[in-house]
This record gives sequence, structure tokens and C-alpha cells, in this order.
Amino acid sequence: MKALVFDGQLNVREVERPRPGPEEALIQVSLAGLCGTDLEILKGYSGFRGIPGHEFVGRVVECEEAKWVGKRVVGEINVSCGDCDLCLWGLGRHCPKRTVMGIVKRDGAFAEYVVLPTINLHEVPESIPDEAAVFIEPLAAAAEILDQVTIHPRMRIAVLGDGRLGLLVAQVLEHARAQVTLFGKHPWKLDLAQSWGINAYGMADEYIRNRRFPMVIEATGSPSGLEAAFRLVAPRGTIVMKSTFHGLAQFDTAQLVVDEINLLGSRCGTFPRAIDLLARGAVKVDQLVSKTFPLADALAAFEYLKRGSPLKVLLQP
Amino acid sequence: MKALVFDGQLNVREVERPRPGPEEALIQVSLAGLCGTDLEILKGYSGFRGIPGHEFVGRVVECEEAKWVGKRVVGEINVSCGDCDLCLWGLGRHCPKRTVMGIVKRDGAFAEYVVLPTINLHEVPESIPDEAAVFIEPLAAAAEILDQVTIHPRMRIAVLGDGRLGLLVAQVLEHARAQVTLFGKHPWKLDLAQSWGINAYGMADEYIRNRRFPMVIEATGSPSGLEAAFRLVAPRGTIVMKSTFHGLAQFDTAQLVVDEINLLGSRCGTFPRAIDLLARGAVKVDQLVSKTFPLADALAAFEYLKRGSPLKVLLQP
Repeated sequence: MKALVFDGQLNVREVERPRPGPEEALIQVSLAGLCGTDLEILKGYSGFRGIPGHEFVGRVVECEEAKWVGKRVVGEINVSCGDCDLCLWGLGRHCPKRTVMGIVKRDGAFAEYVVLPTINLHEVPESIPDEAAVFIEPLAAAAEILDQVTIHPRMRIAVLGDGRLGLLVAQVLEHARAQVTLFGKHPWKLDLAQSWGINAYGMADEYIRNRRFPMVIEATGSPSGLEAAFRLVAPRGTIVMKSTFHGLAQFDTAQLVVDEINLLGSRCGTFPRAIDLLARGAVKVDQLVSKTFPLADALAAFEYLKRGSPLKVLLQP
Repeated sequence: MKALVFDGQLNVREVERPRPGPEEALIQVSLAGLCGTDLEILKGYSGFRGIPGHEFVGRVVECEEAKWVGKRVVGEINVSCGDCDLCLWGLGRHCPKRTVMGIVKRDGAFAEYVVLPTINLHEVPESIPDEAAVFIEPLAAAAEILDQVTIHPRMRIAVLGDGRLGLLVAQVLEHARAQVTLFGKHPWKLDLAQSWGINAYGMADEYIRNRRFPMVIEATGSPSGLEAAFRLVAPRGTIVMKSTFHGLAQFDTAQLVVDEINLLGSRCGTFPRAIDLLARGAVKVDQLVSKTFPLADALAAFEYLKRGSPLKVLLQP
């Protein structure tokens, strides 16, 4: 099959089609999404080697469990042992033995076919087209915040970053009835958020000099986002950090301690809530796709993502 | 009166005795304690100029409210406006207009006399001698953790740092029925903790390679403590950061995000709980005083604190 392989360099090449084991399914990928984490992997994040890609929708073509064959599915990306303390708590996405599709020791979805355990799969309802279903993974990550902190109606929340993740987070929190203010750098993305009824501003100093948000979501994908978050958060407030990047961040711990700030890491979420949000039309993703490339042109897709500041870039095998 | 003054340099000299205004008290200082924050002030922390010192016990010698005169008192260190949103929530210690005794724009207790608003004062019960009362401020800071997170009985908590603050925190958490493991660098301090029935170990790698503490308290007073805390904390666990120091700390935000760690700053606490803990003998402080210097020898006291690794160093005006 055709696949994008990262072995220090990125190449599209022919590789052997993977074979599903017991309790696994072979999925023919219909669409896959590029994510900031994929760019970080190219810089060395997680030391990954293999086929990247962890956002996808596809159809099961081979599986011992007959009920899955032919189903249109998305897949949770963490493959856990099912047996350790964290797995017993339902926190398999924190299992110390886990592999992560396209990120940690497991091939991902930038290929014609991918294998995942059936326990990871969710059938996609008819009402969600492929172009929306491919957002289920990042939308689940955005909605993970709701599992970690209490969002009160009318709570004033700043979202930093007008990229793919920031625009999903802003919508999720608006839907949870918070008062969201989105801060970003790209006028056309801010206009898009405004068109959904979300307050959106540039990152200019006049908007962020008042530290008066009890909660700030950092989704810029860059170390400088954390610094801006500290400038926005009120004393005793919470910063939820969603950006993963390769390298170290610096911050003034004195402010964290003196103002008793709560800095909370947030990563993957579970899929059912994201599927529900999409099925009900509570989150809009149809304007979030900037461009779709054939898998054969994956290198061009990565270049396009790196050089411009597009929203979602998709690959079609 | 005699006072220790920091104007870029430390000097003991004669200064004018302060005068209490309305709703303020003039307190004759009996004993004052040196704290890591005082050393950080010498390095530039908070840009403080004036008389440092924020841990003290003394006696009210002048006050419009007659009931205070002659009382033996300790004083909360944050002087707030009483009028802003944070003050209305009882969080005056986060008031943006606050001054902080000996730390931010207000003279402190390394002097014969100090002035504080009466609203900040707490009478010290007879059963607590001066040598213990001088620990009420740092003990309140240690106990602040109980106001911020839920400590479950038998919860496994690591305390990093065997200094003054670490030894207070370990006792407070043991009293809250957690299972505390103290990590430190000084065999004699670890022995002291052991003598109180607290598990105590050196910071050697063999003890900290297993990341299995749902909560880690960082009280080392050094940027390297944060790194050690990240090595100890379990996925989805909490790091409470108590050290304030001048400068930036670095950490790998990827671990914070991927493991969804909660990093929580923690500073001053309120005094009544600390007074109660001391009055009931729930926390031992009698072995925590390393040496008492006369105020006239304050420079020698600072040198002693900097060069050795003593526990509490006191000044007696």
C-alpha cells in the first residue's frame, strides 16, 4: 500500500499492508487530517519513526468480529494494556505501556490502510460526512477540558490561538455557555470566529494587559503562548495548556506561586461527546478545511501546513 | 529604633520609629524569623527596598483600639484594600493593590517596632511560646495546601525539600492523614523527620525513578525542585509549588500536557488554622530553630543562613 513514512525524513512510498490480529480491525482510510503534533514529530517530538497520522475516518475492510466489517469508523488513538491501574480507572489514554497511533510506537493513518483494536473504534453516524468526521479526534481533545474543570455558565474564558484547535475549543466552551474571548494573530480566522458569534481579538497588548480571566486556554502551539496566558489569567485562576511542542518552556514561577495559579495540562479526550457535538451541529467544522491533498502529495501538504497558516489540511489516500 | 534596612545592601542602622495610623497598631517585635524569601529579596525578588522580615511575634504597645494594647500578637502579612473584588471574596492576600510586610512596599519585622493594621493581627494563646509563635506565618503557608486541594486519608504524597518549609508541610499533611514521603538532601534533617514518624529519603535517583505519587509538594526553594517533582508525579497527578525564587524555571511542557499534570502555585495561608495546629501540638517546631541572633548581628544571621543549611534562624531585637 501507499504510505507516508517518517524515518528522519518524510517520504511517500510503498510499504506492506498491515494485518489485523485478534480483536483488531483493518481500516481503509478515507480521509486523514494533519495536526500541529505531526509537525512537532518532524522536529523530534516523541522520537517517532514510522507512519504518522492520528486523525482519520475510514471503513473497516477486515475484522474477525463480523459486525465491524463495512462500518464507517473513527478510532481513539491510545492503545493501552487494559490491565494496569490507570486502565482499570478508564484512563487507558494514560497507560504507561500505551502506544499511540502515529505518535508513539504505532503506525498511523497517513496510509491507505491502518490497523487498530476494535475497542478503540466508534461507528460514525450517517449524519456526519467524512469531511466532518475527520475532526472527531481534535474535537475530542478540545472537549477534554470539560472533563477536567468545571465550566460555569457566563464564566469569562480566554482562548489563546486562532488555529484549528483554538477554534474548536472556543466553540466547545461557547456551547458549554461560557463567555469566550478568542485571541489570535490571523484576521481571517478571527473573522470566522466572529461569524459564529464568538468575541475575537488580535493578540495586541491593549487587549491582554488586564489580567481578569479566571480561566485561560492556551492553544497557540508555541512556547510564547504560555507567557501570554500568564498575562491574562486572574489571581487564583486556571490556565489549561493544550499545546504540545518539542522542547522546553520557560516561565516565571514566582507569578504561579504568588498568584496561586493552576496550570493544567490537557490532551486527548474520549470520542462519544465529540461525535454527539458534531451530530447535533453544536460545533461547526465545515469552514475549517483549508485544502485536501492526495496522499501521494503528502510532502506538499506538510509544506503547505508549515509555510502558510492554514486551518485543517487533509490527506486523501 | 534599630532596624535592618535593605537598599541594595543590607545594613543595621537607626531609623525613625514608625507611627500607627487609625486602625493600625504599633508592635514591639519579640522575635522574627528569616525565610528563603528574604534571601531571594537580596537577589532582587519583588524589587523590595526597606526593612525586610515577615515572620514575627511581638506585643502591641500603641493602638487607638484599647483592647489590643498589651496583647501578644502575630500578623498576617498582606495588607489589602478591603474594597476590590478579590477582597470581597476574602482573598485579600491576592488584592492587586496590596502591600506585603517586608516583601512589597511595606516595612517588615527585622526592627524593634513594626506597624500593621489591627485587621491583620491575631492574639497568640498563652500555650504557644514566642519561639513557636514565630512559626505561625510559615506554618499558615504550609497549611494553605489544605485550602487548595483535597487531601484524602492514606493518599500518597511526596514532599520535596527537607528545609524549614518542607518539614512543616510534611507534618501538616501527615496530620491530615496522608501517607507522606519526604525527599531531601540533608541526613540530619531527614533523621529529624524520621524521628517524627515521617518516611524520609535522600534525593537519590533510586528513590525517585518511579513516578507514582498522585501529589507532589515542591518545597526545595530551587528551580531544580520542579524538575524532580515532574519525575515523581503520576499521570493526572498534582504538583503543588510552594517555592518562590527570583528568576525563571524551565520545564518540559510536553509532559505537563501529555500526562495532564496539574501544577498549582501555593503561597500564604490564613493564621487561625496554624495557631490551632500549634496550640494542639499537632505540629512540632521546637527542634526547628537552629540559632537566634541579636538584631544587631542580623548580617551575620543572613550569612549563617546563606552559607550553612540551617533550619530556622531567628532575630531578637
